Amino acid sequence: MYKIVQTQGGVCLAEGFFADGVSAGLKPNGAKDMAFIYSQSLCDIASVFTTNKMAAAPIKHFKAKGSFETNFVLVNSKNANAITGDAGVEDIDDIVQTLPQVVCNPIMSSTGVIGVRLPKEKIIAGAKLFNLSKKEPHNAAEAIMTTDTFSKEMALRVELADGSSFNIGAMAKGAGMINPAMATMLCFITTDAHVSAKEMQKILEDTTATTFNAASVDGDTSTNDTVLLLANKKSGVYHEAAFREALYTIMHFLAREIVRDGEGATKLVTYEVSGANDDIEAQRAAKALSDSLLVKTALYGEDPNWGRIASTIGASGVECSEESLKISFEDVCVYDRGNIYFDAEMEAKASAVMQREHFTIFCDLGQGAGKFTAFGCDLGHEYVKINADYRT
Amino acid sequence: MYKIVQTQGGVCLAEGFFADGVSAGLKPNGAKDMAFIYSQSLCDIASVFTTNKMAAAPIKHFKAKGSFETNFVLVNSKNANAITGDAGVEDIDDIVQTLPQVVCNPIMSSTGVIGVRLPKEKIIAGAKLFNLSKKEPHNAAEAIMTTDTFSKEMALRVELADGSSFNIGAMAKGAGMINPAMATMLCFITTDAHVSAKEMQKILEDTTATTFNAASVDGDTSTNDTVLLLANKKSGVYHEAAFREALYTIMHFLAREIVRDGEGATKLVTYEVSGANDDIEAQRAAKALSDSLLVKTALYGEDPNWGRIASTIGASGVECSEESLKISFEDVCVYDRGNIYFDAEMEAKASAVMQREHFTIFCDLGQGAGKFTAFGCDLGHEYVKINADYRT
Repeated sequence: MYKIVQTQGGVCLAEGFFADGVSAGLKPNGAKDMAFIYSQSLCDIASVFTTNKMAAAPIKHFKAKGSFETNFVLVNSKNANAITGDAGVEDIDDIVQTLPQVVCNPIMSSTGVIGVRLPKEKIIAGAKLFNLSKKEPHNAAEAIMTTDTFSKEMALRVELADGSSFNIGAMAKGAGMINPAMATMLCFITTDAHVSAKEMQKILEDTTATTFNAASVDGDTSTNDTVLLLANKKSGVYHEAAFREALYTIMHFLAREIVRDGEGATKLVTYEVSGANDDIEAQRAAKALSDSLLVKTALYGEDPNWGRIASTIGASGVECSEESLKISFEDVCVYDRGNIYFDAEMEAKASAVMQREHFTIFCDLGQGAGKFTAFGCDLGHEYVKINADYRT
Repeated sequence: MYKIVQTQGGVCLAEGFFADGVSAGLKPNGAKDMAFIYSQSLCDIASVFTTNKMAAAPIKHFKAKGSFETNFVLVNSKNANAITGDAGVEDIDDIVQTLPQVVCNPIMSSTGVIGVRLPKEKIIAGAKLFNLSKKEPHNAAEAIMTTDTFSKEMALRVELADGSSFNIGAMAKGAGMINPAMATMLCFITTDAHVSAKEMQKILEDTTATTFNAASVDGDTSTNDTVLLLANKKSGVYHEAAFREALYTIMHFLAREIVRDGEGATKLVTYEVSGANDDIEAQRAAKALSDSLLVKTALYGEDPNWGRIASTIGASGVECSEESLKISFEDVCVYDRGNIYFDAEMEAKASAVMQREHFTIFCDLGQGAGKFTAFGCDLGHEYVKINADYRT
């Protein structure tokens, strides 16, 4: 038995972690644009990176080092250091050489515009403003924002039955629908749990699949997507099930926050697909729904156009048929294995569901036991406006 | 040697074909909503249908018949007869039984709203208005429109060196970005060429791959997509290369017309991908570009945001690297294997290209000899407006 308690402290809740954000002049309005996370002792690292073949320089820099421990993460916003070639990787080497001696094997992470070299001198000068004894997690969470409209943090304390405890805290950013080409989903998680490097890599991968990888804003996989989990083991305490549950709680919350923060997004929609041949097919159908332009615009218009949902599932390539399909908007079933329940009364009920800021669409494919839950948002005028005009 | 001459006559150009469109009251404004194509003699049929697993009743009806010849196609707009179960197929049987005795193995084709039974009595009454001796191809092309803003036809006469000739004519509709859930890409082609059923099926499939299947409006595969080619062989003349070229010319033209007619679409953009590992990978990259929300909104904003193009190719899963990639807007190269040519002057030049109604983006992946050309359009406010509000 254990208890998971939500608390404050973000990435500084876990023992021995420090963080802050400063303004280095990368953002023209003087907002915070550089953050660090520092641990007094070396941390094991678990990581998940973008599958984009044009992975950004910080990811190439990380991967080139092979296996290592670290006590420092340096993050900048406004510039993604992506598609900048070998020079982009060398820029990171030049920057990390200027960090204080106490820093060991620092990891750099960047988010912002693609295809522009880092303003190296500004970043080196910014890093000199860091005070490694600061515990200002909220400043750090603000500094990694690009076009996010709010910062995203969560911190949990896990209390075991014997009175011992450990902590997990995290911050994330995601521009999502706002400025996806400068968008980067970044998430940094710190813990003092006494978890092994191998086990936490496995748990991080499992949890990413059902949280960040179940979230879709516009179907884009950026050059910089990164989830990092640092464990300094200071609590000396570990409990696998509790750790797994706490990590899921944090990552699920942050993934939804990222989707909810898309400018132009007015709704957060959950797609619960069941009855697929297997979980892979359920995922394919759920992601097809959350990525579909037709479905997203219908959501925006609060139009319970179940025909678009059926057609999108049919086009996704998974095993399905109209004879076994069932579609509900929350508890309002509009189509059930050949029977269309869509008179004026049902349409009004389904429309009422869609007026909520958050609701679930249930699709039972009636084929097997496969299931997957994805979440996404609608696509409205703001999305077009922001993405058409974003550089001007 | 042969000559291909563009002419008038649409689906009635080929000898022995008749067509017309009538108003059966399916469209509330009284516009034409039913069309027929009739051939005096039986035709071989080549066909390509949607890959959507929820294929509409007319497609199920066609496929259930196995191999057959026909002399009649009946098309209605406004109702797709999709996701209507066995009843939808039975409705077709009931309707075609009422057609004149001269009609043999009629094919029905529908486009419009999904999930609503056909108004059978209206369609039966509408079919009684048909005059099978009419040659009004333009009426037919108008009758199959849903939210298309213009009708789409082309007719070609193929003149061989020995003075003999044959004809191919076609009509198509596609709502594309307008109302994709009621959207159905339909294309009907008639020819008097003396082509064998087997050969024309092969040529139709090949040509579909590089024309309609290279076109993307919003990445949707509808329940009703259909391309039908009817050959009555009346000319007694055939020449494979000329037939292939003429068919490509017609289908390429109509596919582009469908994309160009998307409401909200202000630009027709060609993506010419070369240097991929193979043609399949080139196609995947080109379709990823034409489907990408990020690229489409940048097109709408006339923003030469090449970073989005590179990132989209990287995310598409094809073999590629920033070291071997080259991107040009027409003849304006903005990125060449690690070199970024994107100062204010180049940006102005690239922006000028994007202000055109039609332009090509060239992407050389630098991996192999694979190539593919796709075409798509931008995504603007009108798309959102129409798709959010379409049923109200």
